[in-house]
Amino acid sequence: MTQECFTLEMAVRDYECDLQGVVNNAVYQNYLEHARHEYLKEIGIDFAALAAEGINLVVTRAEIDYKASLTSGDTFVVEVRPERISPVRIGFRQDIYRLADRKAVVKALVTGTALNAKGRPQLPEALKDILDRA
Amino acid sequence: MTQECFTLEMAVRDYECDLQGVVNNAVYQNYLEHARHEYLKEIGIDFAALAAEGINLVVTRAEIDYKASLTSGDTFVVEVRPERISPVRIGFRQDIYRLADRKAVVKALVTGTALNAKGRPQLPEALKDILDRA
Amino acid sequence: MTQECFTLEMAVRDYECDLQGVVNNAVYQNYLEHARHEYLKEIGIDFAALAAEGINLVVTRAEIDYKASLTSGDTFVVEVRPERISPVRIGFRQDIYRLADRKAVVKALVTGTALNAKGRPQLPEALKDILDRA
Amino acid sequence: MTQECFTLEMAVRDYECDLQGVVNNAVYQNYLEHARHEYLKEIGIDFAALAAEGINLVVTRAEIDYKASLTSGDTFVVEVRPERISPVRIGFRQDIYRLADRKAVVKALVTGTALNAKGRPQLPEALKDILDRA
Repeated sequence: MTQECFTLEMAVRDYECDLQGVVNNAVYQNYLEHARHEYLKEIGIDFAALAAEGINLVVTRAEIDYKASLTSGDTFVVEVRPERISPVRIGFRQDIYRLADRKAVVKALVTGTALNAKGRPQLPEALKDILDRA
Repeated sequence: MTQECFTLEMAVRDYECDLQGVVNNAVYQNYLEHARHEYLKEIGIDFAALAAEGINLVVTRAEIDYKASLTSGDTFVVEVRPERISPVRIGFRQDIYRLADRKAVVKALVTGTALNAKGRPQLPEALKDILDRA
Repeated sequence: MTQECFTLEMAVRDYECDLQGVVNNAVYQNYLEHARHEYLKEIGIDFAALAAEGINLVVTRAEIDYKASLTSGDTFVVEVRPERISPVRIGFRQDIYRLADRKAVVKALVTGTALNAKGRPQLPEALKDILDRA
Repeated sequence: MTQECFTLEMAVRDYECDLQGVVNNAVYQNYLEHARHEYLKEIGIDFAALAAEGINLVVTRAEIDYKASLTSGDTFVVEVRPERISPVRIGFRQDIYRLADRKAVVKALVTGTALNAKGRPQLPEALKDILDRA
């Protein structure tokens, strides 16, 4: 059985680098979020449209291991592998690799849920399907 | 007659510096916006509350002269001086000074208006008052 | 005679949108900078490598007209057209168009120079060539 | 025995909020970093000065639990409590509380080290002292 794995190729933008000359730590969360949202869009879940309807996809926990740094000119791949955490929590294993040498840059587990206007968990069907399959 | 001038003191955060070791150009717009919103709050205009009501304060033009750079550890002042551009456009003269030596860092003129849900200009009363006085 | 025009296609990332649900004003400067740096790289000028050598490409003035907003899901094009401002200043006409309807989103003129370690203008040869041709 | 705890008071800036109307996840890492750097400065460690000398303070792991959201207008406190992870790793327990109701917003453990120009761990004396005391 193959595991679902979505990948997104991106490139470092110079303004994302900080005074150490490498991509700032917080920016990797931007990369991870963008890749997750692109993945969700592919399976029919639109983060912005849901927010407009009062359903907010939220991150409840992020664990990020920084293995190496990206810098100006680097291209990289962000992976997204969904996994079941609980009936209402979905996890995303997200690794970032530098394209030039396939070096691991970041290994992350981002856990989230969906909250309705009352702040109660309410997962979109497409996310439930993923949890059922995972 | 004294002209209104709102000032906000701020400090550079390290993540705002880029690989040249100085505050990135785009970040000054963040500083300018934050000072404008604090000024507006002081005169009774809440950017976020207006947005929630469907009234969007929008920038239509920004002219920014970069005179010097801020870097890690710097503290600075952002000035906000409103001026009348037209019956529906308000300008904000915004200068940024480094506190240590009062050196001019940025001189900007940011012009904006308020748009209602139909995309038509609709200025909050407090802004009209400023335009009348300016 | 054709004018040089570099174009870069990009997509809005959700984290770039603010509480009004549209791309935040400051983020357009990120887009403009990224497109300029990609253009410079194409003509052989590496912003980060120059900074490491003590030559800093700096923006001295930005004029930005905001014509329309980009939002979640939008793809867009950033144009870069160099022009001569003075012997030591180069201008970049930069327009941003939404791809779906070719609507103008931003029209900008960004002026810059290159400063050596002593803070004196010192343009890389490739930039001088552009100024000569422009 | 009292444990060291550094606290920094901050306020949400509107541009830090995303299209859900709350502070974007990645921005909390900005807050955490800024508070850590202010703490380090207080004990005599200057992140930017060290970087200029070729000593880079780096984050190796971040664990962040998101408990509640901050939004426009909120003020909050970021705590920094150093703890020993290993002879060359220092941990920072960092909690973020909303000031209005003391509600926990984020609970984080950020682990880091200092790398010299050869990429080998080399902790500044002030950090070693903290590890010895922790």
